[in-house]
Amino acid sequence: MGFSKKPVKGMTDFLPTDMRLRDSVLAEIKRTYAQYGFAQIETPCMEHIGNLTSKQGGDNEKLIFKIEKRGAAFDRAWDSGNRDELVDNGLRYDLTVPLSRFYANNKEQLPSPFRSLQTGPVWRADQPAKGRFRQFVQCDIDVLGDATNLAEIELITATSTALSRVLGKAGIDRFTVHVNDRQILRAAALKAGFAEDQIGGVLVTLDKLDKIGFEGVESELLANGADADTAKAYLDLFRDETNGAFSKAFCDAVDAEGLAETAANLDEIIANAAALTGEGVQIVFDPTLVRGMGYYTGPIFEVTVDNFGISIAGGGRYDEMIGKFSGEDVCACGFSIGFERIIAVLKDAGVTDLADEAEVEAVAFLVDAKAGAEKRREALREAQTLREAGANVAVLPMRKNMKRQIQTLEGEGFSRFEKVYAD
Amino acid sequence: MGFSKKPVKGMTDFLPTDMRLRDSVLAEIKRTYAQYGFAQIETPCMEHIGNLTSKQGGDNEKLIFKIEKRGAAFDRAWDSGNRDELVDNGLRYDLTVPLSRFYANNKEQLPSPFRSLQTGPVWRADQPAKGRFRQFVQCDIDVLGDATNLAEIELITATSTALSRVLGKAGIDRFTVHVNDRQILRAAALKAGFAEDQIGGVLVTLDKLDKIGFEGVESELLANGADADTAKAYLDLFRDETNGAFSKAFCDAVDAEGLAETAANLDEIIANAAALTGEGVQIVFDPTLVRGMGYYTGPIFEVTVDNFGISIAGGGRYDEMIGKFSGEDVCACGFSIGFERIIAVLKDAGVTDLADEAEVEAVAFLVDAKAGAEKRREALREAQTLREAGANVAVLPMRKNMKRQIQTLEGEGFSRFEKVYAD
Repeated sequence: MGFSKKPVKGMTDFLPTDMRLRDSVLAEIKRTYAQYGFAQIETPCMEHIGNLTSKQGGDNEKLIFKIEKRGAAFDRAWDSGNRDELVDNGLRYDLTVPLSRFYANNKEQLPSPFRSLQTGPVWRADQPAKGRFRQFVQCDIDVLGDATNLAEIELITATSTALSRVLGKAGIDRFTVHVNDRQILRAAALKAGFAEDQIGGVLVTLDKLDKIGFEGVESELLANGADADTAKAYLDLFRDETNGAFSKAFCDAVDAEGLAETAANLDEIIANAAALTGEGVQIVFDPTLVRGMGYYTGPIFEVTVDNFGISIAGGGRYDEMIGKFSGEDVCACGFSIGFERIIAVLKDAGVTDLADEAEVEAVAFLVDAKAGAEKRREALREAQTLREAGANVAVLPMRKNMKRQIQTLEGEGFSRFEKVYAD
Repeated sequence: MGFSKKPVKGMTDFLPTDMRLRDSVLAEIKRTYAQYGFAQIETPCMEHIGNLTSKQGGDNEKLIFKIEKRGAAFDRAWDSGNRDELVDNGLRYDLTVPLSRFYANNKEQLPSPFRSLQTGPVWRADQPAKGRFRQFVQCDIDVLGDATNLAEIELITATSTALSRVLGKAGIDRFTVHVNDRQILRAAALKAGFAEDQIGGVLVTLDKLDKIGFEGVESELLANGADADTAKAYLDLFRDETNGAFSKAFCDAVDAEGLAETAANLDEIIANAAALTGEGVQIVFDPTLVRGMGYYTGPIFEVTVDNFGISIAGGGRYDEMIGKFSGEDVCACGFSIGFERIIAVLKDAGVTDLADEAEVEAVAFLVDAKAGAEKRREALREAQTLREAGANVAVLPMRKNMKRQIQTLEGEGFSRFEKVYAD
């Protein structure tokens, strides 16, 4: 096999200009989350294949990059003739599975509730497209072991604050946090007349509402075998409720047993989060919000940028996942920022770096090839003195085309050039 | 396959206390390297398997974690019955191969010389041992396109400065930078009477000098078929030269054609780097320094901590590697810090965090389960006000065993506790 200079399909090289933006955004997000008492953890990029294929990951389990066994273990697997035996590990497709394993492995050493912050790359062998990569960074906060809605309120407030600070630099100061509850979605479907075993499919269809509209949803429900009256009754519930109506009113209309408590909980979450976030942030009840992952059990959230129509963060409560996974119940709630989308939005807006403090001076010494040992030593010393005074300095050989060299260096942020010639 | 709560063999979960140290060390290293004009880049963790198995990586090529093809491509490979066809990519085993690919792919957009800083995880399926992990962080600086020794001088000065700043926190203020040149190693072996095709093997043996001593090296040379006189003549060259003698004197003794220039170059590197680094740093010529990687072509370096006898950084000039790899010659020189070893040394010394500025106050609100909606709202608001004033604050449910809860939170760095009860 020859040499390929392109990165692996769907993956990206980041140049210094990319890294300045990515690093400064990540630093701002981490700084904000630290203010909310989230503590950083890190897990290996690789997980046991059994942990990644435990049916908690939905469609992501079909997109795993699998790692071959090595040495004698691989030889045995190959000889067995069973292709499923060839791998022992895989690259993580999200940070939630590793977090569940991490918590099961380390909980004796962690406070309860534990507020976790985890950032890092994840991998999915999805078809690459604009804005969809096969290696991308996720940025998750999770509260483990907190059954109260303090978890939801603080997650929403922390994430809204982080997004405001970051996107504010791009002049994007208006976004919406959509909030719903899995119990409400379930009760609404039952109220309209769907059977328990139809709910999963109905929600998959409802999730397309913003793309295909009420008529599209109705057609798809009917195509999937729904009774016409049931489909109509179901959609009537939502028709006037998609623009931030109060959850309580919606729940009264659904009128299911036990939903009053769910509604009161959601109202408290929305009211508190709204009071705690800046004026550009709208927190709205959205009874049509579904969120794909099957593991959510209670409140769910999603952030959209107004006028862009894209989702930039999402999350919710998943009280049963860690228990199914590790055998010990732990209630949990999380919020994940779509880091690559934030970067794309900032780049589109021409933002190159979040730092707004006065830049550090960057100085390049350009040393002529004919400059003697003494001249070079002087230049190196002077550079060191400037560094000690706080500047960033590089001592470089002077190129024949110095004008072009200086232009390229200016593109890299250098603003002062010291030329060192032979005497 | 069931659930495994342990990380994959040889890999590690990092707790918040680990992350504070790791993050602060990485930040200090990056800050220092920025002062020397190194610009950060990032490459995907995965590389084309052909790039990873191009014979540039030595034994590391035997330790690759390989990624299975997916979908129809995997089906075809399985049906072909050829086990080598099953994989298309692998996890990188170092940052130098990706850097070479990155430079070939992006050089039009980069200045020349280009000073690159790359940090990130690499993977090797080595037998795990104390301090040897299967996923570990490397921290590399490289100068691409600089044929002058300004590259070596600045690499050594930058790395020494970063190491001084980081290890100084552990009271470790004395370390040694060993410097040698591949041309000198080659000339010394030829001078003693070895043939060109013996040199590789001879250097593998010489590399063990600090472990097995002169007698051990002599036995191994003889066991490998060396002539007794040749082995003696060879070792005599080194006997009095292992403690920082000048390269010029050693080269005069070796007296090979063309070595005068190599010696003068090395003397200039050592003299300048010594003048530019702090007093705890010794820069010494060490004619026995070998460095394993076959791709080095000129000066090579290695940093050891005095009294610990461990190597914590290494590098050298590799002018031919990128060309062999990409088809276009680019001279290059790099220095890599063994990040995990630095962390181990700091942990052994009891260092938990490099930050020495006054810590941010961390406040926990503990909210009793019986506190009403109004009390909770007040606590959430007060927390937000404290955050705006610069504190880190978490609003948490109060546990029945509050004393124990507070103890655990104190371990996480919280120092102030606000209790919120029902009226």
